[in-house]
Amino acid sequence: MSDSSNNTLSTWVEMPNHSDFTIYNLPFGVFKNKKLSPRIGIAIGDKIVDLSVLDQEGFFSTFFLPEGIFLKDSLNDLIALGKTQTRKIRERVQQLLLADNEELRDHSARGKVMVNRKEAEMLLPVKIGDYTDFYSSIEHATNVGKMFRDPENALLPNWKHLPVGYHGRASSIVVSGTPIYRPKGQFKDPNMDKPGFGPSRRLDFELEMAFITGRQTKLGDAVSTADAEEYIFGMVLFNDWSARDIQAWEYVPLGPFLGKNFGSSISPWVVTLEALEPFRVAGPTQEPEVLDYLKCEQNHSFDINLEVYIQPEGKKATKVCQSNFSYMYWNIAQQLAHHTVNGCNINVGDMMASGTISGATEDSYGSMLELSWKGTRPVKLEDGEERKFIEDGDTVTLKGFAEKDGIRVGFGEVSGKILPSK
Amino acid sequence: MSDSSNNTLSTWVEMPNHSDFTIYNLPFGVFKNKKLSPRIGIAIGDKIVDLSVLDQEGFFSTFFLPEGIFLKDSLNDLIALGKTQTRKIRERVQQLLLADNEELRDHSARGKVMVNRKEAEMLLPVKIGDYTDFYSSIEHATNVGKMFRDPENALLPNWKHLPVGYHGRASSIVVSGTPIYRPKGQFKDPNMDKPGFGPSRRLDFELEMAFITGRQTKLGDAVSTADAEEYIFGMVLFNDWSARDIQAWEYVPLGPFLGKNFGSSISPWVVTLEALEPFRVAGPTQEPEVLDYLKCEQNHSFDINLEVYIQPEGKKATKVCQSNFSYMYWNIAQQLAHHTVNGCNINVGDMMASGTISGATEDSYGSMLELSWKGTRPVKLEDGEERKFIEDGDTVTLKGFAEKDGIRVGFGEVSGKILPSK
Repeated sequence: MSDSSNNTLSTWVEMPNHSDFTIYNLPFGVFKNKKLSPRIGIAIGDKIVDLSVLDQEGFFSTFFLPEGIFLKDSLNDLIALGKTQTRKIRERVQQLLLADNEELRDHSARGKVMVNRKEAEMLLPVKIGDYTDFYSSIEHATNVGKMFRDPENALLPNWKHLPVGYHGRASSIVVSGTPIYRPKGQFKDPNMDKPGFGPSRRLDFELEMAFITGRQTKLGDAVSTADAEEYIFGMVLFNDWSARDIQAWEYVPLGPFLGKNFGSSISPWVVTLEALEPFRVAGPTQEPEVLDYLKCEQNHSFDINLEVYIQPEGKKATKVCQSNFSYMYWNIAQQLAHHTVNGCNINVGDMMASGTISGATEDSYGSMLELSWKGTRPVKLEDGEERKFIEDGDTVTLKGFAEKDGIRVGFGEVSGKILPSK
Repeated sequence: MSDSSNNTLSTWVEMPNHSDFTIYNLPFGVFKNKKLSPRIGIAIGDKIVDLSVLDQEGFFSTFFLPEGIFLKDSLNDLIALGKTQTRKIRERVQQLLLADNEELRDHSARGKVMVNRKEAEMLLPVKIGDYTDFYSSIEHATNVGKMFRDPENALLPNWKHLPVGYHGRASSIVVSGTPIYRPKGQFKDPNMDKPGFGPSRRLDFELEMAFITGRQTKLGDAVSTADAEEYIFGMVLFNDWSARDIQAWEYVPLGPFLGKNFGSSISPWVVTLEALEPFRVAGPTQEPEVLDYLKCEQNHSFDINLEVYIQPEGKKATKVCQSNFSYMYWNIAQQLAHHTVNGCNINVGDMMASGTISGATEDSYGSMLELSWKGTRPVKLEDGEERKFIEDGDTVTLKGFAEKDGIRVGFGEVSGKILPSK
């Protein structure tokens, strides 16, 4: 595709400064508005290319696409066509948007094809089959181990041998902008004789990214690290809301449950692996050496800047964290190879999240648990506010973007406001 | 419904001795065969009532059912009509099957309506959204605690305060009869310096039952124990295949993952809560008292006999376990109330399994882990065989039935054969 070899592409679409949605990005999403039923689009600048109208106008006439493939309320059927087709569709749209291409620019349907993003309501981009959350940041796992287990042996013995992961709840994954009710539940602080019940007192975000699978396997089959990216369609930002007090009491011996499944939020635009190609980098060195099925022939990490903002009701937003996807010890190919090595089958639209992505410095920790070190060091915000955990009325926003040699490919944001318990 | 008030119902359908599928049961399932596309039926004796043909012949003409509601490859859309409708459908079928009712018995379409079960291929009855596994048998949790943690404090502190549960993998839940490949994975026995990799050496079954939800909730809403059964459509037998060596190495701190998600098997016929009504019993006394949201006004347990058989390739089957669903410490209403108390939303077709159902005696333990006490006491089988865990070629079959005052309501069976690793 032209965007990895040529970094001087320009488009006839007006491009705001620092837009995440450049001609190099072209992520897929699902949207509707007052006039339009749910449909699939590609973001560019402040606009959305309505793929269903492009299709009706014959711009994909040589593609042999199933009828109405873009008039869907999820990307699943489109993704299921396979990467050959989705790559071609994205490349065709890129071609149509180039400054000197007059096909769409001067077409009478241009006004109908180009929808204002401001007027669109973004929907959950995929129907999520199964959702898995990994725990792949060594800094995060070490911080948590120091706080809750043994500071001298913060990492558990299995951690450097396999990408630890667990199953999460798919039904409660919502799109950016959906408010989240503070969960109620049981907790038992060290000073309590017996468990109490009520709204969580230690509500947290987790800065994560997630990939979406684009191809299914059969029960019994495994995907190698070499093939893994052929099964991954793209990525989104992921906020794994967590209730630390509920989680601490419930999680032994079978893992987190109600402390997590009250809601997770994702960004609406799915950035393809093709768009991330220019930002491919090596991950951290893995020592001790991993088992054969986890070895990689190429780099599977990406240099993606990540940020977290907290905005109390009626106040200014403060950036509280700055991290990077490339800090992750385990990469996406290793995660998928591990997930399937036992024959576990995957479907189109499964979501696999990274786990909290923390860095080495204190301003790069991806959760309030770490930023406030278990509530012992309040985080200062603008307007004189401070936070140990997230309060009612707070809006938490994650942002992510890659930038190199004048090319910017961003994820937009995932944002969610905490409402008081119902 | 007539079956709880009258225990002398008889049907014109030939009824084999000890059939699970009596006129009192009438479970729903999805089937197809060489001639028939997937469709919904109700089991009776050795027959299946093809509901799609009944519908076409006008037997539900006053029900205002959506067109083609029985010509589906899952029960989801039917269940989503609500319990008022599904109860009416089941009652209508019961009426039509009564010995003295001539409507169907003497109808020209009778031959088309009544399909031989032997000639039908049963499909997975529901499209499973999310799958949750609980850990609700006190005997099982105590046995595991004794083996792996502290024999003096076998139960963890949270166990009697909440129904411990975790999320599992929905994609790998298969219908009875589907073979399961022995999973490969990492393990690290106490005598090993570093982890090894290969086919699991400690493959196990888990005797469980699962309920299927029939009504959705919105994110943020909770279901009370009093309302819980209105959200539960019915139940199936559930074999939660487990690789103990993989599980032991991976499960800290986030719970079981690849040790479980290579496959779970369910019985194809969904027995409704209405059919189980005559078998409602009190569960074990809960002490200490549970928190308010877990208190129950009525009994939510059922007296269901459970059995496990192991049949090595080419040998006889041996019954290795005899347990009962009513042994469960936490009941289904408490499980659902707990699952949603934090606002986690549920959908039609979610599956929630009980966890291994063990009793107090050694012959009632619901897994090889417990029956062979971690492999230290081989279990004797017929034909001179013995087993510590499950071997390649073994078929494991779970059976379940309730019986009282001449009424029998059974689940049939869930069976699965272990194939060598791929």
